[in-house]
Amino acid sequence: MKILILNGPNLNLLGKREPSIYGNISFEEYFGQLQNDFQECHLDYYQSNNEGDIIDKIHETGFDFDGIVLNAGAYTHTSIAIHDAIKAVKCPVIEVHISNIHTREEFRHKSMIAPACKGSIIGLGMDSYRLAVDYLLRNK
Amino acid sequence: MKILILNGPNLNLLGKREPSIYGNISFEEYFGQLQNDFQECHLDYYQSNNEGDIIDKIHETGFDFDGIVLNAGAYTHTSIAIHDAIKAVKCPVIEVHISNIHTREEFRHKSMIAPACKGSIIGLGMDSYRLAVDYLLRNK
Amino acid sequence: MKILILNGPNLNLLGKREPSIYGNISFEEYFGQLQNDFQECHLDYYQSNNEGDIIDKIHETGFDFDGIVLNAGAYTHTSIAIHDAIKAVKCPVIEVHISNIHTREEFRHKSMIAPACKGSIIGLGMDSYRLAVDYLLRNK
Amino acid sequence: MKILILNGPNLNLLGKREPSIYGNISFEEYFGQLQNDFQECHLDYYQSNNEGDIIDKIHETGFDFDGIVLNAGAYTHTSIAIHDAIKAVKCPVIEVHISNIHTREEFRHKSMIAPACKGSIIGLGMDSYRLAVDYLLRNK
Amino acid sequence: MKILILNGPNLNLLGKREPSIYGNISFEEYFGQLQNDFQECHLDYYQSNNEGDIIDKIHETGFDFDGIVLNAGAYTHTSIAIHDAIKAVKCPVIEVHISNIHTREEFRHKSMIAPACKGSIIGLGMDSYRLAVDYLLRNK
Amino acid sequence: MKILILNGPNLNLLGKREPSIYGNISFEEYFGQLQNDFQECHLDYYQSNNEGDIIDKIHETGFDFDGIVLNAGAYTHTSIAIHDAIKAVKCPVIEVHISNIHTREEFRHKSMIAPACKGSIIGLGMDSYRLAVDYLLRNK
Amino acid sequence: MKILILNGPNLNLLGKREPSIYGNISFEEYFGQLQNDFQECHLDYYQSNNEGDIIDKIHETGFDFDGIVLNAGAYTHTSIAIHDAIKAVKCPVIEVHISNIHTREEFRHKSMIAPACKGSIIGLGMDSYRLAVDYLLRNK
Amino acid sequence: MKILILNGPNLNLLGKREPSIYGNISFEEYFGQLQNDFQECHLDYYQSNNEGDIIDKIHETGFDFDGIVLNAGAYTHTSIAIHDAIKAVKCPVIEVHISNIHTREEFRHKSMIAPACKGSIIGLGMDSYRLAVDYLLRNK
Amino acid sequence: MKILILNGPNLNLLGKREPSIYGNISFEEYFGQLQNDFQECHLDYYQSNNEGDIIDKIHETGFDFDGIVLNAGAYTHTSIAIHDAIKAVKCPVIEVHISNIHTREEFRHKSMIAPACKGSIIGLGMDSYRLAVDYLLRNK
Amino acid sequence: MKILILNGPNLNLLGKREPSIYGNISFEEYFGQLQNDFQECHLDYYQSNNEGDIIDKIHETGFDFDGIVLNAGAYTHTSIAIHDAIKAVKCPVIEVHISNIHTREEFRHKSMIAPACKGSIIGLGMDSYRLAVDYLLRNK
Amino acid sequence: MKILILNGPNLNLLGKREPSIYGNISFEEYFGQLQNDFQECHLDYYQSNNEGDIIDKIHETGFDFDGIVLNAGAYTHTSIAIHDAIKAVKCPVIEVHISNIHTREEFRHKSMIAPACKGSIIGLGMDSYRLAVDYLLRNK
Amino acid sequence: MKILILNGPNLNLLGKREPSIYGNISFEEYFGQLQNDFQECHLDYYQSNNEGDIIDKIHETGFDFDGIVLNAGAYTHTSIAIHDAIKAVKCPVIEVHISNIHTREEFRHKSMIAPACKGSIIGLGMDSYRLAVDYLLRNK
Repeated sequence: MKILILNGPNLNLLGKREPSIYGNISFEEYFGQLQNDFQECHLDYYQSNNEGDIIDKIHETGFDFDGIVLNAGAYTHTSIAIHDAIKAVKCPVIEVHISNIHTREEFRHKSMIAPACKGSIIGLGMDSYRLAVDYLLRNK
Repeated sequence: MKILILNGPNLNLLGKREPSIYGNISFEEYFGQLQNDFQECHLDYYQSNNEGDIIDKIHETGFDFDGIVLNAGAYTHTSIAIHDAIKAVKCPVIEVHISNIHTREEFRHKSMIAPACKGSIIGLGMDSYRLAVDYLLRNK
Repeated sequence: MKILILNGPNLNLLGKREPSIYGNISFEEYFGQLQNDFQECHLDYYQSNNEGDIIDKIHETGFDFDGIVLNAGAYTHTSIAIHDAIKAVKCPVIEVHISNIHTREEFRHKSMIAPACKGSIIGLGMDSYRLAVDYLLRNK
Repeated sequence: MKILILNGPNLNLLGKREPSIYGNISFEEYFGQLQNDFQECHLDYYQSNNEGDIIDKIHETGFDFDGIVLNAGAYTHTSIAIHDAIKAVKCPVIEVHISNIHTREEFRHKSMIAPACKGSIIGLGMDSYRLAVDYLLRNK
Repeated sequence: MKILILNGPNLNLLGKREPSIYGNISFEEYFGQLQNDFQECHLDYYQSNNEGDIIDKIHETGFDFDGIVLNAGAYTHTSIAIHDAIKAVKCPVIEVHISNIHTREEFRHKSMIAPACKGSIIGLGMDSYRLAVDYLLRNK
Repeated sequence: MKILILNGPNLNLLGKREPSIYGNISFEEYFGQLQNDFQECHLDYYQSNNEGDIIDKIHETGFDFDGIVLNAGAYTHTSIAIHDAIKAVKCPVIEVHISNIHTREEFRHKSMIAPACKGSIIGLGMDSYRLAVDYLLRNK
Repeated sequence: MKILILNGPNLNLLGKREPSIYGNISFEEYFGQLQNDFQECHLDYYQSNNEGDIIDKIHETGFDFDGIVLNAGAYTHTSIAIHDAIKAVKCPVIEVHISNIHTREEFRHKSMIAPACKGSIIGLGMDSYRLAVDYLLRNK
Repeated sequence: MKILILNGPNLNLLGKREPSIYGNISFEEYFGQLQNDFQECHLDYYQSNNEGDIIDKIHETGFDFDGIVLNAGAYTHTSIAIHDAIKAVKCPVIEVHISNIHTREEFRHKSMIAPACKGSIIGLGMDSYRLAVDYLLRNK
Repeated sequence: MKILILNGPNLNLLGKREPSIYGNISFEEYFGQLQNDFQECHLDYYQSNNEGDIIDKIHETGFDFDGIVLNAGAYTHTSIAIHDAIKAVKCPVIEVHISNIHTREEFRHKSMIAPACKGSIIGLGMDSYRLAVDYLLRNK
Repeated sequence: MKILILNGPNLNLLGKREPSIYGNISFEEYFGQLQNDFQECHLDYYQSNNEGDIIDKIHETGFDFDGIVLNAGAYTHTSIAIHDAIKAVKCPVIEVHISNIHTREEFRHKSMIAPACKGSIIGLGMDSYRLAVDYLLRNK
Repeated sequence: MKILILNGPNLNLLGKREPSIYGNISFEEYFGQLQNDFQECHLDYYQSNNEGDIIDKIHETGFDFDGIVLNAGAYTHTSIAIHDAIKAVKCPVIEVHISNIHTREEFRHKSMIAPACKGSIIGLGMDSYRLAVDYLLRNK
Repeated sequence: MKILILNGPNLNLLGKREPSIYGNISFEEYFGQLQNDFQECHLDYYQSNNEGDIIDKIHETGFDFDGIVLNAGAYTHTSIAIHDAIKAVKCPVIEVHISNIHTREEFRHKSMIAPACKGSIIGLGMDSYRLAVDYLLRNK
């Protein structure tokens, strides 16, 4: 079982950027914990600030992996191209957000990618990722 | 640890109504499984088709329980009163939906209660409830 | 053959409220006439000012009755929950309105329940009910 | 008692066009049945694909006839000129639609002529016409 | 000097239709007075309920006449095709309205043809036509 | 002289809920003070979280009482049914709000019931109720 | 017979400002011609760049004069206060514009004062004023 | 204790303008009554049709007086500058309206100044002023 | 193989109207060239300024011809009736426009008929027609 | 070289009003510094709370001065009349704002005067003025 | 003669992704056919999922090549940057789409790049490319 | 003191692209002048057509440099991801535009990044950059 954790723009700054919203541990640290907790599956991690790279990665893994956990960051609200990439591949994609996007600016309330995803987990901090992986494992 | 599963309008028909969208087991059956799986906590279940009853139930449990898992059904999209009830109580409330509301009619895309909730789990079938309970247990 | 006439909020005041719009006989009187005219079928009548009660009634009758004639009053324009209840049951539901909602305030021009109903009869006074019953009898 | 059945654009193709939506008998056939069923009144029938012709016909009959049953087809959603013609004449006009316009494209949800009509019957198939004639006979 | 008075849908009913808004003399009577008052020029009059006929008439006269006084009735608010016809011809077109369209329904507030016309005279009763002719005579 | 104070959803939590917005005395306490101050009239008090109950109460008192002071809470912004109930009864209804709804979320800026009420008093804390009662006494 | 020509903001620059749109004679010059042409009535002229002064002037003349010809300039599109002043006085007010406001920026397409005026004359250059005076003389 | 009553555009015509909406006594008369009734405080009165004068007056009194009762008339719906003036001064400002602005034209439904005021009293006739003064006295 | 070239309102003026946008040869001339170039098929041509005539022509040819190349002119942006006619017939319809409608006024950006057509060719001058015929020939 | 600094409503309160947004030195003090720093040119200063005065001042200086630095305060967002005044004069006008209007209320995000100005400097505190003067000096 | 075929995001999956919409041959195969059919010109092909790469490629070829056939995929609906790149270069750009974007989701109906292109060919399958090349060859 | 000048898409074509809007010197030339004029600080320059690269560069410099002068080109109007990058770093970012975006197409009027920046300088040609650097130097 192979699952990709795919992070979009600015999530490389996690732990550094606006810690009151996003917490103060880096994603790398968190990813180590996740791998520990889910030893029964192969977890991969990729981050890019570039919309095109994210699409490339979805194409690359989306036919072989068993699931993608995608936090598309700000591209969530603007990218039809990522929506199309998700629709084009075979494996289920779960949208996650660390913070509750509905308590933030109006322009973060709409997700362009949600209709292409299997489902969404929003606002549950780092646990959003964990629950998404858990879901994929239970529903392979 | 006490957690309430609170279901809104038409969810009493689960297993009976549009099974292609909502699956075909009744919520009572599923709730039995949940209780089995989370024996370390007290799980309560309440359903009403009535907006006022849902508010009453949130008031009644929201100061004593450790969390509420709320599937407000169609009231999700129209009820500021439930939003206010959630904001008024002390325990965290997790919004859940069985189906992916973003692939359905336009009027189901907006949640009036999301900004008052801790977070949301959408489109992951019955597992939406399970993951929400799991989150509450890990974050008490 | 069993048909339910289901009236929503404020329709209990019929004959009393704004008679220039709604006429001045009470619904009970009118219902007596209807029963007289359609003796070949069983006609039931229920009214509530409560959205939840209307949903409960639709659930209760919608699997056994042969049709529901629904004047949802003001809930017509706001209730997704009643829309869902109509969609969830088996028997056809006909939306009726006594007055022409399109000559009144802007917020009465849109019906949230129309897409879930078989059809609508609007603005034909008390005859809106009669024609709806007539339709159900002809199309059982 | 004289009543006009007035059909707008594309209704000449009835029985031929999208039978899954509009059924597969031609309007001429159906009109024969209607005349049979309502022998106590004079029923006339006119169809045109031309907005101006429909207005002319409303002017021509609207001062002498006892009612018009109007299915304005697509002009329903765009024609203020037909709205004005209806308002300008003396006899009541009943708007009818064969299909439920509220389950179709967004641009079919709004009727420009409804506010000028006595009332509307929508989505009840060919019976929409019959019920409209019935209403006019009962309310002369 | 040749000027065309061109009237759109329902204006044939002038004197007959909603006299509280449009007055109670027919346009033919009024046109006789106009011809009397402006004997120095050739005044023509044409009315049609048909958008296409109005376009044809604009094409037919718009290259030879010295001006057109156009009351497009309800097509004012919907017809881009008449807008284009006005733009395509050489002579100036003055838009007129008998009633003040800005005190009526919202959908009458916007004129689709105004941007293609030289100017507009609105709400000054039958004098709207007279002033438009007067303008054309002064500005040939 | 009989006046009803009618409170909508979540106002039972007054003194308990978001005290920075709504103050920290319960409504019962405040109501005692009001009765003391207005001994020349009979003051009644009713609260419900249920839209239907509020409509029932307006029907029950609205023909006999001399006025209703209504804080409809969140239903203010969504309930056409309460709007209709107010319009249907005889006594004047004064809309009140404790906080200034115009400094809060966008969705609280619009009142669906204001057009049906005699007038509104907004943002003056508990004094909003007192001033409304005072108005009703002066204008019986 | 007394008529006021009332000009709003920036019209003092006529002849100086954007001559391609507004022509190149000053309003004072044009006003001299108008007085010459309409010697049978008393014509007054007032211009201000100040919304309050325009309201004051409408109040001052609107009960004694026989008509006001108002070019409110940019206040046309924003001033509800001038709308109210027009509605409050007795004499008819005719809205005029030199240029065709419908061929300019979107924000100039809507007139806030049109619904309060007797009628409007738009885009006919300086003749817009002349025709308005002519109308007032014919309809005293 | 010093309180300013500040009236905006067209309110100088009170008693003269649209008496069916605004009543038929002048504000001066009413102000005399108010002074009589509230002899325990110093009441000042100022009216202007000019947005700038209203701002000047708010600046002049807003740091020394104990409250301002402001009926900004039509500027209520358009003036961000008055909003800013209210926010800039120290004393509380109460927004009042004589008529119920929510039963009038759409463009009167939104108040630009409400978010800057302490609260609003709407539609209670001349008593709107009295209640506002009363509130200020009770809450100094 | 039979193909109809169908032109809507104002296209009869081609070569005469706004040559900077539409070029300066008449459609008849161009049609002669087209017939020359596509001698392997029967090309028909029809133009009308009348929406109803266009619908009639689509009905008349749409069941027998192998394709229609439709430049609906201004009706492109307003006609649901033509949309319905296209949907009702059997042969493919290709929408064409001579000019690039997206560089012109906002109201020309939306095509009401595009969703009913097979496809669209926009802004390629007279070649838009040629390419459409070419497509139909290749895809019979 | 002559440059006018022109301030709109409420800017006379600078140093007094909301110092957290606007800083706490008065504009007069700041203007003294500016004159000191730009001794090579003649700097004038004018402030008014009155839209009409601002227009008058633009007319008065806009043909003789070499530039205007305009902070129109709240009129920025509502005044088409000031927009027109700027367009009507010869010298360049630079729009300035002390605070970042895009981080404040939605209604402050749009500038009605920006399209008429040479350019805008926003959010750079008192330096917004200095940079604007600097620009005008470099680009005479 | 040199022409570039430029494909945007997800078009690398052609033949693999949603074949019911996009057909099942890869673009490389199709491109081979195109080169065969248009041997009189040099055809180049480039695809990227990256908005920036597409802009780079337009810059690189847009001054030397004779035309670009651009299927910008999902960037069609969101990219002002590609719009600007097209406007900045010298050669004509033809927008193409394989599927009819007007029968798909609302957010695919608007093209941000269409106003910058010479024209558009939409919904004609792979032939959209062929026709675009054909147009460029005929109009060099 | 280190300052980065960061240019977005299509700005590499400066001097080449639409010189009537953007002038005709290349940015490299201009940058040389800037370095000359501000020898007291270290100025860096970076340009990319790629949204992701711009974000990377902001991350790379935004914690060490003393300021960024950002002309995000077309990404200004669409990129929430760049907005987030600006918010995430420590140094102030000044938004600049060469042309006045408010006199261009509607879709260029809104800046998505303005709320994240310290301030904006718009429409002052190449001087927009100079003034921004000047501001950063004065406010370190």
